[in-house]
Amino acid sequence: YGKNTIKFLRLHKDGKKHFVKEVEVCAHLRLTSPQEYLEGNNSLVIPTDTIKNIVLVLAKKNGISSLEQFAIDICNHFMTTFCQVAYVKTYVQEVPWQRLHEDGVPHIHSFICVPDGIRFCEAEQCRNGPLMVFAGIKDLKLMKTTQSGFEGFYKNEHTTLPERHDRILCGELFCKWSYGECKDFDFNCIWKKIRECILEAFAGPPDCGEYSPSYQKTVNRIQMLVLSRVSQVQVIEVVLNNTFYNVVDMKNLGLTNDKEVLVPVEAPYGSCACTLGRKKFFEA
Amino acid sequence: YGKNTIKFLRLHKDGKKHFVKEVEVCAHLRLTSPQEYLEGNNSLVIPTDTIKNIVLVLAKKNGISSLEQFAIDICNHFMTTFCQVAYVKTYVQEVPWQRLHEDGVPHIHSFICVPDGIRFCEAEQCRNGPLMVFAGIKDLKLMKTTQSGFEGFYKNEHTTLPERHDRILCGELFCKWSYGECKDFDFNCIWKKIRECILEAFAGPPDCGEYSPSYQKTVNRIQMLVLSRVSQVQVIEVVLNNTFYNVVDMKNLGLTNDKEVLVPVEAPYGSCACTLGRKKFFEA
Amino acid sequence: YGKNTIKFLRLHKDGKKHFVKEVEVCAHLRLTSPQEYLEGNNSLVIPTDTIKNIVLVLAKKNGISSLEQFAIDICNHFMTTFCQVAYVKTYVQEVPWQRLHEDGVPHIHSFICVPDGIRFCEAEQCRNGPLMVFAGIKDLKLMKTTQSGFEGFYKNEHTTLPERHDRILCGELFCKWSYGECKDFDFNCIWKKIRECILEAFAGPPDCGEYSPSYQKTVNRIQMLVLSRVSQVQVIEVVLNNTFYNVVDMKNLGLTNDKEVLVPVEAPYGSCACTLGRKKFFEA
Amino acid sequence: YGKNTIKFLRLHKDGKKHFVKEVEVCAHLRLTSPQEYLEGNNSLVIPTDTIKNIVLVLAKKNGISSLEQFAIDICNHFMTTFCQVAYVKTYVQEVPWQRLHEDGVPHIHSFICVPDGIRFCEAEQCRNGPLMVFAGIKDLKLMKTTQSGFEGFYKNEHTTLPERHDRILCGELFCKWSYGECKDFDFNCIWKKIRECILEAFAGPPDCGEYSPSYQKTVNRIQMLVLSRVSQVQVIEVVLNNTFYNVVDMKNLGLTNDKEVLVPVEAPYGSCACTLGRKKFFEA
Repeated sequence: YGKNTIKFLRLHKDGKKHFVKEVEVCAHLRLTSPQEYLEGNNSLVIPTDTIKNIVLVLAKKNGISSLEQFAIDICNHFMTTFCQVAYVKTYVQEVPWQRLHEDGVPHIHSFICVPDGIRFCEAEQCRNGPLMVFAGIKDLKLMKTTQSGFEGFYKNEHTTLPERHDRILCGELFCKWSYGECKDFDFNCIWKKIRECILEAFAGPPDCGEYSPSYQKTVNRIQMLVLSRVSQVQVIEVVLNNTFYNVVDMKNLGLTNDKEVLVPVEAPYGSCACTLGRKKFFEA
Repeated sequence: YGKNTIKFLRLHKDGKKHFVKEVEVCAHLRLTSPQEYLEGNNSLVIPTDTIKNIVLVLAKKNGISSLEQFAIDICNHFMTTFCQVAYVKTYVQEVPWQRLHEDGVPHIHSFICVPDGIRFCEAEQCRNGPLMVFAGIKDLKLMKTTQSGFEGFYKNEHTTLPERHDRILCGELFCKWSYGECKDFDFNCIWKKIRECILEAFAGPPDCGEYSPSYQKTVNRIQMLVLSRVSQVQVIEVVLNNTFYNVVDMKNLGLTNDKEVLVPVEAPYGSCACTLGRKKFFEA
Repeated sequence: YGKNTIKFLRLHKDGKKHFVKEVEVCAHLRLTSPQEYLEGNNSLVIPTDTIKNIVLVLAKKNGISSLEQFAIDICNHFMTTFCQVAYVKTYVQEVPWQRLHEDGVPHIHSFICVPDGIRFCEAEQCRNGPLMVFAGIKDLKLMKTTQSGFEGFYKNEHTTLPERHDRILCGELFCKWSYGECKDFDFNCIWKKIRECILEAFAGPPDCGEYSPSYQKTVNRIQMLVLSRVSQVQVIEVVLNNTFYNVVDMKNLGLTNDKEVLVPVEAPYGSCACTLGRKKFFEA
Repeated sequence: YGKNTIKFLRLHKDGKKHFVKEVEVCAHLRLTSPQEYLEGNNSLVIPTDTIKNIVLVLAKKNGISSLEQFAIDICNHFMTTFCQVAYVKTYVQEVPWQRLHEDGVPHIHSFICVPDGIRFCEAEQCRNGPLMVFAGIKDLKLMKTTQSGFEGFYKNEHTTLPERHDRILCGELFCKWSYGECKDFDFNCIWKKIRECILEAFAGPPDCGEYSPSYQKTVNRIQMLVLSRVSQVQVIEVVLNNTFYNVVDMKNLGLTNDKEVLVPVEAPYGSCACTLGRKKFFEA
């Protein structure tokens, strides 16, 4: 089993207009025989240097129309070229370069890095099995300053947490969904639509929001909305790493603090992860 | 000499609409006597816990209309309250929360973290001296995919770099400027204007860009444009940490690569720093 | 599914001598019903704050005789106290404080942090299932400056890597092994013995070393040696994240470089992972 | 003004025994004229690529007998080779590889990374000025579990910190000292001696320790001991970044906690920095 990571930039021109994709590709291969591992016989081993060359050549020849198509291309290449490959998985992640605008006018060759959620995808195949496609977003940091609480939880002698009906809900989201075996979707368009669903389900209506009784319920709402709106998604996994904020007690300092000044609590650091599919749900 | 860092969130409501500022404040104090250091006599020492309390109380009482005003408030408090303080410097940095929009509609209480350049400021004062105000932006990553070269440089027997007239210019910008002693500016408005100047000077006109003969010249252009457009700025320091990209040589792989596939070069990592003032320049 | 992380320090005195353990505990719980997730009913949810309290109370009451025993104690507590818990996993990781020595004399209460490999363990249990214990070491960085090569690998038109019979072998090791259901071992003593096995298998005899034909073979040697020397280990997983070093070509600079000056190659970054058990091996 | 960073490994053999130094070199140059910056004229600019080549060639030709000697060699090369260089500073930092031992026997070519304090140095020169040499240690994490307190500090209405006479003293040390213009010291031997002084001054006698009334006083003790024991040191700067530990209040949980269970407090993060010279002290 070996994997490696390749980072590169693919530049593409349409007339004088430039398009840029900077990606990090991680390729995992499993060979049909572990003889290099057991016997020190390297004759089937594909060096990481060769893998790097293949990824760069595919980027040059095919371009990167979407992360997903590029991941599929890499999988296909390894499966059709190397009979000693039993399994291949490719992970592709994007550096979030966005076109620069000056007074609303797009610049033809300048870009700014805007990391408000990182797009990634995976393609995976076992020899004689189907090629599966996944996509996702990670490092998406969101906050609601009201319409969130946590009440009615289990209590015993170790409970010190008070019930709260108006707290800050803040966290870093990781979402990953499966497109199954289908490969000819408009992956760029669907990804944008799913990102909008995630934001909407997290925040609720712009004029009033929607009450969240727990991080878990918010995770569920995100999954339900994506599955109901985007028919191409088969299964969706969501992980929400929470940051807690404590209202500072200012009584000793002679002041009342009506949820105006809060400090982030580094530890304990909570996390909530769920996977939801179309017919049955798995909570893992 | 002591410093400490406090991170907190200040929430403010206008009717049902929420406004949020999450900041990291770093306060540096120097006392008139180092007796705790030389003799172990702590009677003049202001504990970091007390400094934290003061910062939180000021946030509660004054709010954070701008980072700069808040930094000024903290400086003033320490100078007027503690006669044993000989010098105070406060650094305030913002967590880049932006209001979430759904189909263009702003949400009343939901926010997304968009770290495309971090705003910060400093206020600094010696007892009996003026209060000086600085502001800046850091971690701003920009890229131009053409209109950049590096030619005509000094050569000797250790030179292996070829001349290039069409390379990628990519880097992370740090800019810090001084407002001098003036304190009643519209700091939020000026900061946005300076950010636009930086982007414009880096990128050039949207339809054609502007040729950069070196990182150094681009740094100079940024400084010149800010000084010419924003009269409140006295001095501006710019540091550009460069990321180099090499065009992959694909001759061995039977392909030509016309600046289509490039890999970032981690080392050597270059940096270019300059400080430019109104009358005379300092290159340090 | 929820997890959280708690970091704390447990201090213990024997006369005037102090003993310190600083650990990071991560607890994962799965409940018998996901009603908080589906229906927003929190009545079974154990807040992260309560989990933190339990971990701190157990540390106070039981102390931390070994990381493994502490992880077992936490698992047992959750399984016996909360009937709504279907599954519990605890991960415990150590901050590597070592007693300070002055001229060879151990200090009674002073410590230095020496991160040359981080010790960790896991305990895991499903309701009605056995409690399984794992231990490991991570972030262990090792280098061999000779007795390593990579030859006879698969070649095709994308191969550019030359064969090498005398290269640098350098990487960061992650090893995790299973003790099965057994719980009354001397975990501290066994851990030290396994660490020594890993170093010996990586390096070979002190006077001459042992030739490594590939990273994969070195991973296998580590696993084989641990399994042959330490009977308590059931299965061992090893991941070796490689750092490659290139001999700098100095021909252009008029010098020969006989593997004297090398630069680390950041990308592609290789990794090799294998799991080896007693009867059959799994290569995943 | 430009700087850049080069990371490389220098391997040296004495018979079959291998010696390894992996270093990170950062070179800062200032030129006599900023014409590339003002006019886009690059004719005096020394590209970072050339600087990298020079550093690698010097490592190949001279080896790295000590970090300090290597930094001096680089400075000298730039000053004597390039008349357009007005100022040069070189920073050299070591990757802490230590020879591996098996049952106390040193291995001839295997190494382990042990980052218990990172050694670094600087050499600096202005044209027509003296070459100054500095050395230091950073990222050195130390802890005392008793013999530390903080009492008698300044109090006012914002004070909430209780006085403590038995707390944990824990922090990360940065020390940097000057050797002045002298260059023919045994830098390796002196560095080890200073490291021992730092540990001794922090911890006190092994059998009883020494009471620290404040972080500041501990910083002063370190400086005083180094200056009194090591005559080659002219000035010493020490920065101590503190980690605070709070005794967990377990009253709500029905337990007393006699400084047995403590949690680290992430914020506020304190720091104490002082510079001490031979004749007069500077507190900056």
